[in-house]
Amino acid sequence: MAIPRLTDTERAAALPSLAGWTHEPARDALVKHFKFRDFSEAWGFMNRVALLAEKHDHHPEWHNVYNRVEILLTTHDAGGLSARDIAMARAIDAL
Amino acid sequence: MAIPRLTDTERAAALPSLAGWTHEPARDALVKHFKFRDFSEAWGFMNRVALLAEKHDHHPEWHNVYNRVEILLTTHDAGGLSARDIAMARAIDAL
Repeated sequence: MAIPRLTDTERAAALPSLAGWTHEPARDALVKHFKFRDFSEAWGFMNRVALLAEKHDHHPEWHNVYNRVEILLTTHDAGGLSARDIAMARAIDAL
Repeated sequence: MAIPRLTDTERAAALPSLAGWTHEPARDALVKHFKFRDFSEAWGFMNRVALLAEKHDHHPEWHNVYNRVEILLTTHDAGGLSARDIAMARAIDAL
């Protein structure tokens, strides 16, 4: 079952409601940078996102250096952004 | 207290004993790629590395996509590889 990629119109409609998430055109992905007090706090956050990822069966590409976390969301099966990325971004922001 | 950067001789002596770790000259860093069965297994590994990082007070730069983990070790205070990176690489491999 193919997951449909968001149209330009759908993406443009969703983006303004996702605070801090930017669209990376090269990957058709959502990217957000997070900064925490220290590694412990960053890791606590990442563990919560890991649980969300398993629950949504939708996993981020992410990078961590000490207190900084960068999350990139895209849907490989769709070749770009899908509704699953928007849902995941909202779930992360709701933590 | 400055952490001394490894000399070329020290680095060359340490590398052969670190299976799978490669030296990235541009960053003077150690890099290793890990592949797991799925995200759950990758995350289990990353949690164990996170505990090591806190214990050693030495944190990796790392990237995860589903079942793949890339770890980069370098010592910012030393401007490159130090004995702390070698110790951390050995501790990760001992997991």
